[in-house]
Amino acid sequence: MTSYDKLEKRFERLLALREAAGVLHWDASTMMPEGSISAQARSEQLAALGTVCHEILASSEVADLLAEAEGLNELGPWQAANLREMRHMWVHATAVTADLVEALTKASMACETKWRSARSESNYDGIKPLLAEVLKLVKEVAAAKSSALGCTPYEALMDEHTPGLRQGLVDPIFSNIETFLPDFLAAVLDKQAAAAPPILPQGPFPAAQQRALGEQLMAQLGFDFSQGRLDISLHPFSGGTPDDLRITTRYDEADFTTGLMGILHETGHALYEKNLPQDWRRQPVGEARGMDVHESQSLLIEMQACRSKEFLTYAAPLMKQAFGADGPAWDVDNLYRIYTTVAPGLIRVDADEVTYPAHVILRYNIERALINEEMTLDDLPAAWNEAMQRLLGLTPPDHATGCMQDIHWFDGAWGYFPSYSLGAMTGAQIFAAARKADANILPAISEGDFAPLYAWLGEHIHGLGSLYETPELIERATGRPLDAEIFKRHLQTRYLA
Amino acid sequence: MTSYDKLEKRFERLLALREAAGVLHWDASTMMPEGSISAQARSEQLAALGTVCHEILASSEVADLLAEAEGLNELGPWQAANLREMRHMWVHATAVTADLVEALTKASMACETKWRSARSESNYDGIKPLLAEVLKLVKEVAAAKSSALGCTPYEALMDEHTPGLRQGLVDPIFSNIETFLPDFLAAVLDKQAAAAPPILPQGPFPAAQQRALGEQLMAQLGFDFSQGRLDISLHPFSGGTPDDLRITTRYDEADFTTGLMGILHETGHALYEKNLPQDWRRQPVGEARGMDVHESQSLLIEMQACRSKEFLTYAAPLMKQAFGADGPAWDVDNLYRIYTTVAPGLIRVDADEVTYPAHVILRYNIERALINEEMTLDDLPAAWNEAMQRLLGLTPPDHATGCMQDIHWFDGAWGYFPSYSLGAMTGAQIFAAARKADANILPAISEGDFAPLYAWLGEHIHGLGSLYETPELIERATGRPLDAEIFKRHLQTRYLA
Repeated sequence: MTSYDKLEKRFERLLALREAAGVLHWDASTMMPEGSISAQARSEQLAALGTVCHEILASSEVADLLAEAEGLNELGPWQAANLREMRHMWVHATAVTADLVEALTKASMACETKWRSARSESNYDGIKPLLAEVLKLVKEVAAAKSSALGCTPYEALMDEHTPGLRQGLVDPIFSNIETFLPDFLAAVLDKQAAAAPPILPQGPFPAAQQRALGEQLMAQLGFDFSQGRLDISLHPFSGGTPDDLRITTRYDEADFTTGLMGILHETGHALYEKNLPQDWRRQPVGEARGMDVHESQSLLIEMQACRSKEFLTYAAPLMKQAFGADGPAWDVDNLYRIYTTVAPGLIRVDADEVTYPAHVILRYNIERALINEEMTLDDLPAAWNEAMQRLLGLTPPDHATGCMQDIHWFDGAWGYFPSYSLGAMTGAQIFAAARKADANILPAISEGDFAPLYAWLGEHIHGLGSLYETPELIERATGRPLDAEIFKRHLQTRYLA
Repeated sequence: MTSYDKLEKRFERLLALREAAGVLHWDASTMMPEGSISAQARSEQLAALGTVCHEILASSEVADLLAEAEGLNELGPWQAANLREMRHMWVHATAVTADLVEALTKASMACETKWRSARSESNYDGIKPLLAEVLKLVKEVAAAKSSALGCTPYEALMDEHTPGLRQGLVDPIFSNIETFLPDFLAAVLDKQAAAAPPILPQGPFPAAQQRALGEQLMAQLGFDFSQGRLDISLHPFSGGTPDDLRITTRYDEADFTTGLMGILHETGHALYEKNLPQDWRRQPVGEARGMDVHESQSLLIEMQACRSKEFLTYAAPLMKQAFGADGPAWDVDNLYRIYTTVAPGLIRVDADEVTYPAHVILRYNIERALINEEMTLDDLPAAWNEAMQRLLGLTPPDHATGCMQDIHWFDGAWGYFPSYSLGAMTGAQIFAAARKADANILPAISEGDFAPLYAWLGEHIHGLGSLYETPELIERATGRPLDAEIFKRHLQTRYLA
């Protein structure tokens, strides 16, 4: 067995254990009893799994095998890429000491717990000392990984979620959108105001009927219920494993439209996982590319495919049938207007696709400045409110709907936000390329047939796993680097044409 | 840190990982999609967890620490017992080579898969070669563990499920029951035949109503739904972890009585787990005693407490209420007669408490003879049918309802059967001792109050975990060694008095 073969065996076990952790996470969000005793036991089980995974990855044996395998000449392209990804995982695992990881975990848990009550009281000063401790430790992690990866500290944090993501890519794209957005938004709002508002379908929409409709559309997209489930959780997510996909949603019986689009979004995530290269299951190269590409696949399905008039043409009769409803609210044009309503708001997770980038760019600018020590936590609320006013024309009445709304920073997840909007832009660019390559993709969707779309995605994105680094993947699939102009064109076509 | 402290840390992690595996097993039986791809992925995740657990336990570091800790003088009784249990786990883990374990796992999987189709065709000759391979490897395991444990090969197999169980205990008890049973059974059947048959409540009994009733009674027994759940699975079981109890059942809408008693049985298992000593959570001494004591706790609840006229006095009005029913079928005396009906049958899992030991003794005699090479697989069907006729007066029409009915042997689980009946006898003996110690236990149950019973069990059984070896635990709790006479007295009182 070569050093490379030994690495494959070791990573196969590592990734099988991570799959086990994935099922435990899903269970914790869907099935686990609500008592704190069960939750505490679960976090200890996950900690034990995490420690074992870390030990497998950070062992001196892996270090030696990596060095040896990197000297081999006979590796094919998949194997070489696999080795590159193994090295990347190893760098992240070994760049920081176990003590620092533990300190950050504890500080994040303490801060997140306090955040839950402090947020409801809008008490920023109350959470600031705990947030400061988290930020201090995050900066230590960033500094350590920065040297190991050869990038800036903030880039090292982004790299945890989206390998290879650098400010040289993000900065020009975000500053382009930041400039574009205010005038564009004003034009969209003017155009919307000139028309009568869409008619909202009147519920109640029983959860069981919403679920049946959701499952019907999931199956239509290609979700295989012999290898997956749809359940309920407080925060919808796509979890489980590639061979056992577990997506979740929540149902609002007064409004089915949001929950349904949430199901389609998570289905986009799930089908990416399902279609990853089978031959490289449980190898790093067989895993999904970074978080930006993952988000591109959910947003491609949600924003590009399923909010299209074509998809709604197919889905409208099924919606009517599911709820035994009829009338002008269910006309395709009306549904399309509901699904493309733009409304600036304070809350990121409720934002439409036009205003969403503003929420992300605001956070990107702030967290980068905090990590780079160009700003302090004392400046955070004012910086937030200034950007919110400048980008969306709104000023939060309190911190709960302002800088305390997201769990991320309080929970230790820094460098995570930019991938949301990069995913939206990547999704737009990939969908445009797919349609250009196969003119039948959108007409087929109007008949509920996603096979042409998934055939193209399988060949150009899903089936490639982590063979290419993200910029190369995008360029090969779409013919050019990530380009904000394509996303802007999509917005202009949909909202102003 | 002493060598003992280091062992505690190591076993804490090991048992946290085993808890993770427990949740994955529960999920596989209740939530996992039915496709074979998901099942295959799950078995690989569990195999990875199993390998990691084995490596933690079988490491040379543990061997050194155990040897060192056994030389320490300052250990308290719980620590000393913990060390004894650690050594016991270590002996089982290291007595056999990894190759033998793997060979047995593979042979068992192949045999079990084939058994599913062979059973439906009653094709014993078709399964015999695969069963012979399993038996050959089980005998190798038994031989290896026999030397390590200093007992006979068959005892080494029983020891996997019920530590310390030896033929010197089992043989006289089983031969006592084997002699007792035919005449006793004839007398019971005569007595039953002399009375009119009980009136069966007429369904349908919707699953949701059965579930609500089951949950109501579980809560009454002390099951805490903030730390546990009730779900559906093909084969009912008690799973999860002590802090997150997951029991399952299945519902027959034509007959609620069997499913309800199944729920109470599993609740007995679950409450034993819940009440294990909190201070020793995730240490071997804090775990449940062997399988016989576990079964004693489920059968104590099901057979002793909940099939009593006292419990049915409490439960009958709740049953009527749950199904909106009334009439003579719901009288306590009639329900009691339903729940104490004796009917010799071919199938072990459907057997009542009088005939159940016959099924077990038959299997015990056969598997012991096979392991000791006093019988071959060619002799098995005839031996089965002879014993069935002698003990229960029945001859199976085919192998599917004869020697091929249970998964155990085909799946590699040998030495497992005796604990079922030892559990029934242990449960009878413990319940008798509890009632003697607190005369209020049974009257309280007639009012739905299980607190006195669980207070006594907590002190004398549950809260002791694995502090004592099983014979000592039983003798301390009940004042004498396991005694078949107490079980026989229970049967005579219930069925002939």
